This record gives sequence, structure tokens and C-alpha cells, in this order.
Amino acid sequence: MIAPLDNLVRTLARLPGLGRRSAERAALALVRDPEQLLDDLSTALAHAREHVRCCSECGGFTTADVNPCIICSGHGRDRTLICVVEEPGDIMAVERCGAFRGCYHALLGKLSPARMSGVAELRIKALLERVANQGVREVVLALSTDLEGDTTAGYLAEQLHVQGVRVTRLAFGLPADSGVGYSDPLTLKRALNGRQNV
Amino acid sequence: MIAPLDNLVRTLARLPGLGRRSAERAALALVRDPEQLLDDLSTALAHAREHVRCCSECGGFTTADVNPCIICSGHGRDRTLICVVEEPGDIMAVERCGAFRGCYHALLGKLSPARMSGVAELRIKALLERVANQGVREVVLALSTDLEGDTTAGYLAEQLHVQGVRVTRLAFGLPADSGVGYSDPLTLKRALNGRQNV
Repeated sequence: MIAPLDNLVRTLARLPGLGRRSAERAALALVRDPEQLLDDLSTALAHAREHVRCCSECGGFTTADVNPCIICSGHGRDRTLICVVEEPGDIMAVERCGAFRGCYHALLGKLSPARMSGVAELRIKALLERVANQGVREVVLALSTDLEGDTTAGYLAEQLHVQGVRVTRLAFGLPADSGVGYSDPLTLKRALNGRQNV
Repeated sequence: MIAPLDNLVRTLARLPGLGRRSAERAALALVRDPEQLLDDLSTALAHAREHVRCCSECGGFTTADVNPCIICSGHGRDRTLICVVEEPGDIMAVERCGAFRGCYHALLGKLSPARMSGVAELRIKALLERVANQGVREVVLALSTDLEGDTTAGYLAEQLHVQGVRVTRLAFGLPADSGVGYSDPLTLKRALNGRQNV
């Protein structure tokens, strides 16, 4: 494959969800249609590069001229309830479910047991300050259900309990539209332990 | 979602193989890592835009400084054998199988029965000229196995037969690593009709 095309394929393949084959298809579509598709993507990238910023308060995505973001400065949002997520994109996922009317705090990563030194790299200090200064009554941890998520949740709970704030974590259990037969043993064990009266 | 991010998602979703969800994941990864990922992709796109060209002879992808392309000007390629494909990317697929040592001709599209007027938009005139001037003895049609591919094959065969050149088309049949139980009725019918002695 010619070098500039190969380079485009390799770069596209670094995006999550794109394997080598789909990156190749995408690259071919781009160079096949330079005026429409390639130029549009270049423009969209430049536009995002110029305008997308992280909200100085929650760490979620916003634009340079809207800071704090529309959620942090929004009316009708409960500022005493903070949902902690790992990535700015996670905020969009929680917003989409429509069941949360508090504010957010994106850590921009998670801790691993092997590297607790990562604490300084995450937005943990900013979280503790917000909790101390904003009269927060509950912090909901919406973290990954893996070892890093558990490690992060454990560390945050320890720090936050010192401040006397209530700390909760999203429930473990079966995902929607799934079945017991499809579930892994750990998920089932956690769903059993968290069983609810009906 | 904020506008510049939403715009990036919509543009990425126009790429083949990316649905709304995967485009969103890709967009979030890009704005999450502007210095590494987003800038690299912008550079790769600009580089491809500047350097990728269509070969003046076969219509496949090449760079501005290598025209005709490396295949068209290659030693050891049979210039009396032309494989006709729809898209420049199809050339890469045929090359990858390693079973073809002739030259290529990309039509840059295909004809539909409803719009035979598309003849002028495709590189059909250039193909007929190459066949007439290059002493071509066989044209292999490597076209889609759908209605448009059939229409294009029928039209090209008619035009090429006038020039007295042999015209063949890739065999219909079962794909590799598949089974009879997975095959649709039309594929099976064509595989039966094309059955070979063993």
C-alpha cells in the first residue's frame, strides 16, 4: 500500500473500535472522496481541536466560551450530589439514562493497585475540594466494575469518609436485556449478593 | 452533546463500518487525546489529501510522484491481461490474494439498470482505448455479484466483444471457510451451476 494511505490506515486503527480492516475501509472511503468526506473530517477535527475544552469544574467536555459547562452551571441540578466518573464521555452515558439530576466529576482516569502513585494525575484533589466547599451530601461512584475501578472506589471512599460525606456506588447486577445463562460467574455472584425484595 | 463534538461524531459516522456508537467512542477518544491522537489523524488526513492520487492509467491509488502507479509500470506484469474492478481499493484486495500478475483498471463505480446514463461517468472509454491500443488478449471482470455488477459486466462484455478480446468474470460459488448451511439460495444455485470435476 502506498505510504500516505498506509499511514492514514494505521492512524485510524488507533481509534477505539476500529480494527485494521475497518480502518482500511474508512481510509479508502476518505481518499476516494476527498472533497466531501476527507475535507469534512479535517474540518470537524480542527473545529473540535479548537473549541472542545474540559470544564474547569467537572472535567467533562464543554466549549471554551461555556465554562463551567452547561451541567455545572445548570438550574435545577442538585449541587449537593456529585456523580464521579472516569472519563468525560461517561457523563454523556449517565445523562442519557435520564435518572440523575446532580452534578458530575470526571477523574480523567482510574487508579491501579500497582500504581497508586497515579493519585496525583487524577482529578482527586479537585473532587475533595469540591466536596469540602460545596456542602456535598452524597458522592455516587460510577466507576468501572474491574480491578482498577474497585481500587479507585476504595481509595475515594476512604478519603471521602473522612469528610463525613455519604459515598455510594452504582449497583452490581445483571445488565438489561440479558439472561442468567449469558452472565459470567462474578456478575451472577454480585447479583445474588445484591438481590432485592420484590 | 456540545456542537463541535457532535459534528465530529456525525462526520465520523459517515465512514463505512462506523455506526453512531462507534463514531461517538472514536470522537471521545480523539478529543480526549488532542496532542497524540487528534493531531496525528489531522496530519495523516492532510498528508493523504496532498499526496494520494489516482493513477492516470489504471485509476488505482498512487502518489503524485509515481504516475503511472507501481503496478502499471511494474516489470513482470502481463500488460495483455487487464482485471477490471469497481473501486481503487478492490485492486489491493486482488493483489493481496497473490494470484494475478496482469494489470488493473478501476471503473470508479458501477452501472445500474435504472441509470445506464452512468456510462460516461465511469472510466469505460479509457478501458476500451487501453484494450484497443495495448494488444490486450483478456479482460477479467472482478465486479460485484449484485444487480449493478451484473449490469456493468453485461455492458462491458458487449463493448469488448466488438474488439474481439476474450472477456471473463470471476467465478461464482461458495466463499472460503464457509458451509453449505450458511449459504443463501442464489449462491448455492450459482455454485451448483458452476460445479467442477474433482
